[in-house]
Amino acid sequence: MRLADLPTPALVLDRARLRRNIQAMSERYRKLGVRLRPHLKTSKSVDVARMATEGHFGGITVSTLKEAEHFAAAGFRDILYAVCIAPAKLDQAAKLIKSGVALTIITDDLDAAKTIAVRGKELGVTFDVLIEVDCGEHRSGIPPESDVLLAIGRVLHAGPGSRLAGIMVHAGHSYTARSLDAAAEIAEIERSAGVRAAERLRAAEMPAPTVSMGSTPTALHGKNYDGITEMRCGVYMFGDLFQSEIGSCGKDDIAVSVLSSVIGQRRPENRVLIDAGFLALSKDRSTANTPHDVGYGRVADLSGALGLGDVTVVGVHQEHGMVEGKTPLPFDRLPVGARVRVIPNHACITSAAYDRYHVIDGSDEVVAVWPRCNGW
Amino acid sequence: MRLADLPTPALVLDRARLRRNIQAMSERYRKLGVRLRPHLKTSKSVDVARMATEGHFGGITVSTLKEAEHFAAAGFRDILYAVCIAPAKLDQAAKLIKSGVALTIITDDLDAAKTIAVRGKELGVTFDVLIEVDCGEHRSGIPPESDVLLAIGRVLHAGPGSRLAGIMVHAGHSYTARSLDAAAEIAEIERSAGVRAAERLRAAEMPAPTVSMGSTPTALHGKNYDGITEMRCGVYMFGDLFQSEIGSCGKDDIAVSVLSSVIGQRRPENRVLIDAGFLALSKDRSTANTPHDVGYGRVADLSGALGLGDVTVVGVHQEHGMVEGKTPLPFDRLPVGARVRVIPNHACITSAAYDRYHVIDGSDEVVAVWPRCNGW
Repeated sequence: MRLADLPTPALVLDRARLRRNIQAMSERYRKLGVRLRPHLKTSKSVDVARMATEGHFGGITVSTLKEAEHFAAAGFRDILYAVCIAPAKLDQAAKLIKSGVALTIITDDLDAAKTIAVRGKELGVTFDVLIEVDCGEHRSGIPPESDVLLAIGRVLHAGPGSRLAGIMVHAGHSYTARSLDAAAEIAEIERSAGVRAAERLRAAEMPAPTVSMGSTPTALHGKNYDGITEMRCGVYMFGDLFQSEIGSCGKDDIAVSVLSSVIGQRRPENRVLIDAGFLALSKDRSTANTPHDVGYGRVADLSGALGLGDVTVVGVHQEHGMVEGKTPLPFDRLPVGARVRVIPNHACITSAAYDRYHVIDGSDEVVAVWPRCNGW
Repeated sequence: MRLADLPTPALVLDRARLRRNIQAMSERYRKLGVRLRPHLKTSKSVDVARMATEGHFGGITVSTLKEAEHFAAAGFRDILYAVCIAPAKLDQAAKLIKSGVALTIITDDLDAAKTIAVRGKELGVTFDVLIEVDCGEHRSGIPPESDVLLAIGRVLHAGPGSRLAGIMVHAGHSYTARSLDAAAEIAEIERSAGVRAAERLRAAEMPAPTVSMGSTPTALHGKNYDGITEMRCGVYMFGDLFQSEIGSCGKDDIAVSVLSSVIGQRRPENRVLIDAGFLALSKDRSTANTPHDVGYGRVADLSGALGLGDVTVVGVHQEHGMVEGKTPLPFDRLPVGARVRVIPNHACITSAAYDRYHVIDGSDEVVAVWPRCNGW
């Protein structure tokens, strides 16, 4: 099977680029001597997870308990569920632990910590719990200097069904950095917030063996990771146009694209229509506020090269994408039935529309089909 | 199982509202004497399709050939695939026809029409084809007055593997109407474009037995459907906040919502976090340019009532939704673990993140689980 034969739209994964992206990050963290716990929320793929953990300790990060179950079934045994847990999910988490998985959960809430501490005993497990600390994104987590940090720590440390495992911090605001220096600065803020919170726990005679930080920009551009025991990052494996805009990858590093067919031409409007609309591409507009706004994606030719010119998806309906160029489109190369590849703004959300990857490696031949674990 | 027991996030479908929405449209088209061919691109559900076709001729509209196969397997035998076909999909379409499905395809391209006309014979089928006409949206379709309309008609009429079935028109720009009068005006433009194109075919001694129009606003608000043989519409079954903003449904008619759990409180910022982020809600911002911008969705309580005040999802990360209110949030009703229901901007895209509906009907009890047909 070749790309020219696949039903469209389809999600294409370039294994050569994937391997290169993964090897660069793996090597960086081997040299730094920091354990790499790759985040699988972007790829949701066992095949990708095996590549991403190679040469490291084998731990992974997930964003849903369904992912945790999926990777556990494939043999992954050290899993961090990196979203503050809703208490109703503790039963599902306990089942995973009883099946032999070293599952770590997180919280930033005192009442939730009390529930975890008690519920673990009722369920016959000991929950390993990290406390989430906020380093400036203000999404979730508590400030490292807050009183509640110690209160949550004490509850989890003393709890009959919980074990205080340390600190987790995530600098999601590193995505707003528009230079490598700015990303490095946020990496240091992230690191120091995590380390400071751990030090406060230790000073109060509580354990904090794990200090976990991570986001792709801060994983790539930080200068110092002293005190950090684990790095979590995920989107570096695939890259996307937004990551390229913020300097986390080059355009030639982006490993995922959406294969699509031309389904109409509108020459007077200098436009073609493709069969990739908002379900196939998502409505993500991450590049809207960057120097190169690509609408809903940049349009490459079948080989993945940007040889069509400055051509982007300017509008999306459910199964229609409207493709326009800043210069006249090469309509002769884009008849109805021609194939293009759309490079996404945001790999995580675009990939989520597909239940599998069609994998290529150095040519247009599909060398593998890798399943994804979607939904909840 | 009750809503309070479901894993979150989950997609909830209120069958009582669904039934009411479907019955109103079905009754309207029975009275008008126009065949209703409901569009299943929103629901992608056999169970919904059965309700939506009840009392009508049984024909349906789909947006992907995968949907066509899914509904055919459930017994639907008259299916319109309402996206201009890419020639490579003709093999898949032919298989459906050979299995006994009356499948109609569409095109707006002369070269594609030539391919269809020849390829049908090679594949041993006769493709029924509608020509798509543009009535002002300028997405796909050709103008009703264009020369190419007659050229495409002649190719399909004379083709050894094709049969000219008539005209399809879709007023997607009815979504920009901000009053019922404006929607009625666009409905008349849509109707007259379809009828005019059919008349031109007939005047040139070609058949046009089908004149198919449709979008939810023009299906609801048109005053005259003379010359139209079929109405296609879909989102009226579910409704959403955008449809409510443009007067196509009331807020109490919206049948889908996302059940979610509170996973964090940030009292200083008057904010809670929920476990529904951009994968669970989508990044659709349809209401951004309407009088009531609800961010990524309006937040109701577990019963679906808007009793929490003017509370919306103001930001989304992959598995985190940031919920804020214009007045102080009732934090005591929103502890970590509390459940809410998020009413979506856009039912089609939000529903697509889920592989099934949890169906309720007049209470919080889950009375059925209905599968969806996602992907391609």
